[in-house]
Amino acid sequence: MYRTHTCGELNAANINEEVTLCGWIQKIRKLGGMTFIDLRDRYGITQLAFNSEINPDICKQIEPFGREWVIRATGKVTERYSKNKNIPTGDIEILVTNIEVLNPSQVPPFTIEDESDGGDELRLKYRYLDLRRNPLKNNLLFRHKLSIEIRNYMNELGFMEIETPMLINSTPEGARDFVVPSRVNPGEFYALPQSPQTFKQLLMMAGYDRYFQIVKCFRDEDLRADRQPEFTQVDCEMSFVEQEDVLQTFEGLIRHIFKKIKNIDLPKVERITWADAMRYYGSDKPDARFGMKFVELNDVLKHRDFKVFNEAELVVGIVAKGCANYSRKQLDGLTDFVRRPQIGASGLVHITCNQDGTFKSSVDKFYNADDLKAVAEKCGAEAGDLILIMAGQKLKTQKQLCELRLEMGNRLGLRKAGEYKVLWVIDFPLLEWDEETQRYYAMHHPFTAPKPEHEAMLESNPGEVNANAYDLVINGNEIGGGSIRIHDRKLQQRMFKVLGLSEEETERKFSCLLNAFQYGCPPHGGLAFGFDRLCAILSDCDSIRDFIAFPKNNAARDTMCNAPSIISQEQLDELRIELKK
Amino acid sequence: MYRTHTCGELNAANINEEVTLCGWIQKIRKLGGMTFIDLRDRYGITQLAFNSEINPDICKQIEPFGREWVIRATGKVTERYSKNKNIPTGDIEILVTNIEVLNPSQVPPFTIEDESDGGDELRLKYRYLDLRRNPLKNNLLFRHKLSIEIRNYMNELGFMEIETPMLINSTPEGARDFVVPSRVNPGEFYALPQSPQTFKQLLMMAGYDRYFQIVKCFRDEDLRADRQPEFTQVDCEMSFVEQEDVLQTFEGLIRHIFKKIKNIDLPKVERITWADAMRYYGSDKPDARFGMKFVELNDVLKHRDFKVFNEAELVVGIVAKGCANYSRKQLDGLTDFVRRPQIGASGLVHITCNQDGTFKSSVDKFYNADDLKAVAEKCGAEAGDLILIMAGQKLKTQKQLCELRLEMGNRLGLRKAGEYKVLWVIDFPLLEWDEETQRYYAMHHPFTAPKPEHEAMLESNPGEVNANAYDLVINGNEIGGGSIRIHDRKLQQRMFKVLGLSEEETERKFSCLLNAFQYGCPPHGGLAFGFDRLCAILSDCDSIRDFIAFPKNNAARDTMCNAPSIISQEQLDELRIELKK
Repeated sequence: MYRTHTCGELNAANINEEVTLCGWIQKIRKLGGMTFIDLRDRYGITQLAFNSEINPDICKQIEPFGREWVIRATGKVTERYSKNKNIPTGDIEILVTNIEVLNPSQVPPFTIEDESDGGDELRLKYRYLDLRRNPLKNNLLFRHKLSIEIRNYMNELGFMEIETPMLINSTPEGARDFVVPSRVNPGEFYALPQSPQTFKQLLMMAGYDRYFQIVKCFRDEDLRADRQPEFTQVDCEMSFVEQEDVLQTFEGLIRHIFKKIKNIDLPKVERITWADAMRYYGSDKPDARFGMKFVELNDVLKHRDFKVFNEAELVVGIVAKGCANYSRKQLDGLTDFVRRPQIGASGLVHITCNQDGTFKSSVDKFYNADDLKAVAEKCGAEAGDLILIMAGQKLKTQKQLCELRLEMGNRLGLRKAGEYKVLWVIDFPLLEWDEETQRYYAMHHPFTAPKPEHEAMLESNPGEVNANAYDLVINGNEIGGGSIRIHDRKLQQRMFKVLGLSEEETERKFSCLLNAFQYGCPPHGGLAFGFDRLCAILSDCDSIRDFIAFPKNNAARDTMCNAPSIISQEQLDELRIELKK
Repeated sequence: MYRTHTCGELNAANINEEVTLCGWIQKIRKLGGMTFIDLRDRYGITQLAFNSEINPDICKQIEPFGREWVIRATGKVTERYSKNKNIPTGDIEILVTNIEVLNPSQVPPFTIEDESDGGDELRLKYRYLDLRRNPLKNNLLFRHKLSIEIRNYMNELGFMEIETPMLINSTPEGARDFVVPSRVNPGEFYALPQSPQTFKQLLMMAGYDRYFQIVKCFRDEDLRADRQPEFTQVDCEMSFVEQEDVLQTFEGLIRHIFKKIKNIDLPKVERITWADAMRYYGSDKPDARFGMKFVELNDVLKHRDFKVFNEAELVVGIVAKGCANYSRKQLDGLTDFVRRPQIGASGLVHITCNQDGTFKSSVDKFYNADDLKAVAEKCGAEAGDLILIMAGQKLKTQKQLCELRLEMGNRLGLRKAGEYKVLWVIDFPLLEWDEETQRYYAMHHPFTAPKPEHEAMLESNPGEVNANAYDLVINGNEIGGGSIRIHDRKLQQRMFKVLGLSEEETERKFSCLLNAFQYGCPPHGGLAFGFDRLCAILSDCDSIRDFIAFPKNNAARDTMCNAPSIISQEQLDELRIELKK
C-alpha cells in the first residue's frame, strides 16, 4: 500500500503518529523558512509542512514541485500553529521527513478549484482534470449514492434488476435510432435502445412481475443544450397492477430518496390532471413551488370592442403579487420578454391594481374601471398587484403565459433552490395531432393503454381519448413518466392503425411483441425516470452534463477521446459498408 | 391491485381467508366432480379447486381454459385433502368462487416445465416463454442477488460506481469493435466499448481512487459456442496500490460472495505463478479441484532408443489413481480422445502399475521394468495406478495433456459440482509472440505494467518480461483478470512501440491517455470480472447464455426480435452510408 491514510481523515487524535499520504499538490506556499503544501485526494486536503532549518535537503527536493504533481509524503502528524476551521483536517499538519514524486505534472490548462477559470469546451477536452474539482466530484458521489439507494429500495420491494440487450432491432418511432452494422450478417444492422420498452414488456409476459434496471439508453437527436445522445434511465415495470399501484409504489421510492438523500420528509405527492396542468399552468410539467395560477378571462374581457381579445380563443391572465409598482421600463421589458422569438407572443396586456383601489391598464381605451375591477376580482388580485394578460390560440397562449409565469416566479424569488414540489400529472391524452405530418402521434408511446372507458372511441374520436399515463414532475421538470400498457393484441393492432402504421410496418417492427401477446400476457404497467435529470434536480442544478462523468458536447462529440472519428478502410470493408460521397 | 397474495405465500395459517390470486395456468386436472388448476406466478404455485356440485357455473366457465392462460381467481383458502409436501403452499388450496380470464393463451410451442421439450433455437425464439421456466427464473434471480451483493460490498469499501460512456472512439486491438455511424458527424463512427479500460484509467487520473462499475461491453468476434457479442463486466480500478492490495481487496469480494450467496467459507485463495500453472496443469486457468499434476519425465524417458520421446521438447505424464484396470478398449478410447482434431496429439503412452508390483506399458519394447519403475517413482504412482504420458513441443504438449487431465478428472468424478477451488494466477508474461503475424501481442492488454525489475529488458528481451498481471480462476474458468497499469508516459510509449504500433497509430488511438499521463497520473491498477461467467460458475452451470435474459444465438442474432435486420434507405441516407454490393 502506498499510503497509510487518506488526505481527509487525520485530525488532532492522530497527533504524533507517523503517516504516509499520497495525493495531488493543490497549492504551495512559502512563509519565511517554512513551505506548506496542500495535498489533495478524493477525501480532502491535508497540509504538509517543510522546515528549511530542520530539513534543508527535503526543502531543496521540493523546489521544482508544482500544482497537480502526484507525490507521496511521510512524516509526523503535528498540531498546527494556525488552525483552519473550515476543513476536517484543519487542526493538524504533517512534518514531512520523506517525500517522493510519483508523477510530475505539466501546468494544467485551467485551475483545479471550485470555481475554475476554464471555459466549457476546454474543460470537456480535459475532463479528467475537470473531474478533480470538488463540485464535479460531489456530483458523481451523489449520483453513486442515489443509485445505491434506488437499487436497494427496489430490491427490498422484490423488484429484480434484469439487464436487457443493447444490440436490438431498429424501430424508429419518435426519435432516431443509433444503428450498428453487423459484420456477421452483412447488410443488416442492430439498433441501440431508445429505452428497454419492448424487453420490459416481454419480461412481464415472462412472469417477472417486478422488474427494474438502471440502464443506458440512446437517442440520435439533433442536440439541444441539455440533451445527451446517451443517457441513463431508471426503468421499471410491474404486472397485475392498475395505475394507482404504480403511482403508490414510485411515490414511495421518491419519498424514500428525499428522506435518505436530502433528509426531507416529502408530503403526499399531489396529483393534477393534464387538463388542469394546462389550464392552470400552461404546461404538462408545472413548477408548483409557487401559485400564480392562470385565470381564464374570456367572459370578463370579450364583451368590449377590443379585437385582439375578441378574436382570441383564449384570454388568460396571472397575478404578480406586489408588482403594481413596476416601472414603464420594467413593463416594457416583460413585453419584450414574451415577444422574443423563443416565445413568440405578439404582445402583453397589463392591469396595475393601484394601492388606492383604482386600476390602470395598457388597454384603458377599451375597458372602463368596472371592467378592470371585474378582471381583478376574477383573478383574486389585490391592491398592489399586477395582472398580466395574454390572448390568442389556446395551446399557444398557454405555453407563452407559462414562460412568463416562470419568468415572474424567478423575478419574485418564488422558485427557491432547496424547495421541492413533486407532482403526478395524470390523465394525459393518448394521442396528439401533428399539423405538419397530418397524423396522430402517441403522446407517451404506442404501447400506452387508453382509459378503458375511452377505448370505444379510439377510431371515431382519437383526439379525445385519454390514457392511463402519468408523469412525475419536480419543480417544473419532468423526471419520469409511464403508463399502463396495452396487453391485448387486438387493441395494440388498433393502436398501430390509428398511428398510421401499415400492416407491413407493424409486422416488421413489432411482430415479436404482437406474437408474445398471444401466449398469456398479464396486465402490466410501469414507468421510467431520467436518472441524469433526477440527479441534477435533486442537487438544484440545471445541467445534466455536470452529473455525467464523460459527457458529449453539443455536437454529440467527445472532444477528449476524439469520438466519433474515422475508422479504417479495413473496418468498413469487413462491415460491407461504404461512405456516401 | 389485481391480487391480494402471490401464488407462493399462502399456507395453513391463511385457512379461511378470502384471497385473490393472479397467474398462469400450469396444469389442469379433473378428478371426478373436482377440477384442479395449478396456478403459477414468479413466487410459486397454488392449487385452485373447483367443485362441479357446489359451483357448476364456474366449472362450466373454466372448461375452455388451457395451459398458460392468465387468470385471476378469488376464493377461500382451504386445507387440502391430499397435501403436497414438496411446495410451500402444499397444505392448502383455494375453493374458487369467482374467476376471470385476464388473457387467454395459444398452446405454447414447448412445455413450460423444469425440463422442457423445446430445442435451443425454438426456446430462443420464444425466450419470453422459456424465461417462465423455473431454472431460468432462478438464474436471473441469482444474477440479480449477486449484483446487489457486489454493489453493496464495493460501496462499503468506498468504491464509487461511475458510468463510463458507451459511444467511444474505435481502438481495435485484439477483438474487433462494433461501430456506430454518426449522423451529426458524417463519415465518422463511434465504437462500442470492449471494456471501459481507458475511461477507468482516466478516472484514476481524475482522482477517483476507488472505482467500479457493472457494465455492458461489446466484442465483434466470430462467435464460439459460449460467447456473446454483448456481455457484462464487473469493472474495478484503484489508485495508490500495488498488486498485493488489489489481490487482497478482490479476494475479499470473492470470499464475501461465497459466504453470502452460497454460505461457503472459502479458505485463503491460493496463488500460483503462470509458469507453475503451465508446468503442473498445462493451463493458465487450472482446475485445481483435483491434483493429477503434471510430472516432467524428460530425464527418465529420454535415455533409450524411443525416437518419439528423444525428439520431444517435453515428455510429461499424469497419474490416474486406481485406473490400472482400464481395458484395452478404454485405453484406446483415451488415445482416440487426444487424437481428436480439437486436441491434435499424435499419440498417448500409458504405463499400468499392476497390483503385483509389475508394470505394463505401450512402449515395452523400448523400456525395461526398471525404466518403468523409475517413471512410476518419479510420478509417485502406486500399484493400481495408470500413468498417461504425452510428448512433443512443450506448449502444445502441455495443452494437450491438460485436456486429457480434465477428461480423466471427469471420468474419475474429481470435478465435483458444489466444490470450488479458487486461485490467483500471477506473474503472467507481459507479451506473447504470434507466429502468424510475427509480432508480440500484449497478453492482457497494452496498458499492463511490466514488473519493475524487468522493465529494462522490454526492448532487448521482450519475451522474458513478466507483468504485474493476475487472473482469478475458479474450477478451471478464468473469472477475472487485471493488472497494475503503466502510469508513466514514456513507458507506455515504449510498450506501444514493442507492440509494433506506429507513432501515427499511437497518436490516433491513444493520444487522450498519453496526454493525460502528463498531468499527474497516480500509480494504479485493477481488474475486471466476467459477470455472466461468474453467475454461471457459481451456479455450477456451463452456459453463460442461461444467465442472460435475452441472449443472442451463435450467429449473433436475436431470433426473437429479429435483430440485426435491414434498415430503411432513409436511415442509410441520413447516416450517409451505403451497403457494399
